[in-house]
Amino acid sequence: MGESGISLSGISSAYTRIKDKVHYTPLFRSAQLGGRSGTELYFKCENLQKTGSFKVRGVLNKIGKLTEEQRSRGLVTVSAGNHAQAVAWAAAAMGVACTAVMPETASRTKIRATEAYGAKVILPGDVYAAFEKTLHLEKDEGLTFVHPFEDRHLIEGHGTVGLEIMEQLEHVDAVVCGVGSGALSSGIAVAMKEQNPKIRLYGVEPLGANAMQQSFEAGEAVTLDQVNTIADGLAPPMAGGLPFSILRKYMEEVVTVTDREIEHAVKELLSWTKLLVEPSGAAATAAILTNKLTFEKGERVVSVLSGGNMDLDLLSKFIQNS
Amino acid sequence: MGESGISLSGISSAYTRIKDKVHYTPLFRSAQLGGRSGTELYFKCENLQKTGSFKVRGVLNKIGKLTEEQRSRGLVTVSAGNHAQAVAWAAAAMGVACTAVMPETASRTKIRATEAYGAKVILPGDVYAAFEKTLHLEKDEGLTFVHPFEDRHLIEGHGTVGLEIMEQLEHVDAVVCGVGSGALSSGIAVAMKEQNPKIRLYGVEPLGANAMQQSFEAGEAVTLDQVNTIADGLAPPMAGGLPFSILRKYMEEVVTVTDREIEHAVKELLSWTKLLVEPSGAAATAAILTNKLTFEKGERVVSVLSGGNMDLDLLSKFIQNS
Repeated sequence: MGESGISLSGISSAYTRIKDKVHYTPLFRSAQLGGRSGTELYFKCENLQKTGSFKVRGVLNKIGKLTEEQRSRGLVTVSAGNHAQAVAWAAAAMGVACTAVMPETASRTKIRATEAYGAKVILPGDVYAAFEKTLHLEKDEGLTFVHPFEDRHLIEGHGTVGLEIMEQLEHVDAVVCGVGSGALSSGIAVAMKEQNPKIRLYGVEPLGANAMQQSFEAGEAVTLDQVNTIADGLAPPMAGGLPFSILRKYMEEVVTVTDREIEHAVKELLSWTKLLVEPSGAAATAAILTNKLTFEKGERVVSVLSGGNMDLDLLSKFIQNS
Repeated sequence: MGESGISLSGISSAYTRIKDKVHYTPLFRSAQLGGRSGTELYFKCENLQKTGSFKVRGVLNKIGKLTEEQRSRGLVTVSAGNHAQAVAWAAAAMGVACTAVMPETASRTKIRATEAYGAKVILPGDVYAAFEKTLHLEKDEGLTFVHPFEDRHLIEGHGTVGLEIMEQLEHVDAVVCGVGSGALSSGIAVAMKEQNPKIRLYGVEPLGANAMQQSFEAGEAVTLDQVNTIADGLAPPMAGGLPFSILRKYMEEVVTVTDREIEHAVKELLSWTKLLVEPSGAAATAAILTNKLTFEKGERVVSVLSGGNMDLDLLSKFIQNS
């Protein structure tokens, strides 16, 4: 355990807490897509997770750690979608009230799903306005803010993805994961590197939202003035401080991909693996398919498909762009 | 074993022969889609099978049964696509030459994939012309015809889908499967009903290609004058005689769905399960979602997703039709 307080044993405890409530998602290999980079390429399918993304793992762990009083006052969260859906779903499952603040640019699919799980959805404006509104509700109404990344128990829950990969595949050489705030990749980092320090972890960000890459360069977690990417789940305007403190130690490198490269990866994944993966979940694969990362021939590489919640209209646009 | 010669022990032998060469495909549950019919609804994901459909199971078993001389002369087959892909892939894997005769209306994705696996593709015209050309090649060039349905070893290979379902889920109440020639559903029928006769098996055909439904009514396998459906894999112009002899004994009922209902099911499966399922593979689910079949509340129903090979352009058209 480093300065973050996040440890392999914390992740193991989280797994005990949540494992009966989440899917043990499959790890599929694609010889076709792996052939492009000369690797044995595997996909960890968190797009097949409950609510369609990995987020339920951390949220369930977080809610499991709250006091009765906190639960009775209810939760508030802020998210472009997948985290909001996960909090709404987990809150409903545990009988806790939930308010989800979302940017008005959020995907309609994600807004509808969050409401369908029983949350009250508020759309105050852009992503900055959404954060402000959330902090306001936390302070004035006493709601517990389920933070999308700056939270130890959340990150430990997300880290259970890494535990499963370690169980599912021997001799992993490298893991590639999209980076938004860094909560997922930092959890995976602790789960896997503290079992085997030789495993390399790579992060992938959209070119228009590379907060973690800039944070690595600056030596501290930075906030961006603006973000511009189709990958809404990778577009928080800042690197998480807690994730940054882990990733600076455990992540080899962060590379960027363009929206067009992500779009292509979404279509390749659909054609060859038959899996619907949202843009944020396809960014890691985009970096592999465009050879932004260098692997030895035959290395075992795992690409994390973090979510699959995508408007079909957007998918149709991607297809027509070909 | 009945008059067909197809038995549970033959299917078990087939499984021993092929199991190291095929994927053990997952069985996923969708609470959302199951809720529409009040059932516990599971999906057997043969769209995630090698070459994107269940077909490799039967073909591998068939090739495994050929003599050295037959293998050296090479194979010919006829198919709208998935069977052709499977024969091409399996032939290449076993070093056998393969000619695939396809109707010129076959999906471009399927033609390209069949060629990519190394087969010589011939497109002589419509589905009737394709059958004629195939029989010609068998007779004149001494190629072994890997028939897409009228073959005991093929059906026994396909039946291994049923063996896996029995292993993956206890207390199955009903299985729903799309019916083209009936080779898949008849294999599943023997595999499951001969283990537990109480399991009900339902078949689903496109309204424009209901050869098996008409065969049930006529009391013998019939050939249709014309077929008209978007579900190319369910559009052979006849019921298989061998499958019919099994299904008349083991299948409760055949119901039909419209192309529009299939199209809707493709989109619902993509949205809720994140799986790309081709129209033929979605027909069974279409029948469940439109309540063409009646289940008791809470029954455990398995819908077979038989394949996932679909042009993304067609998918885009489906999405725009909403």
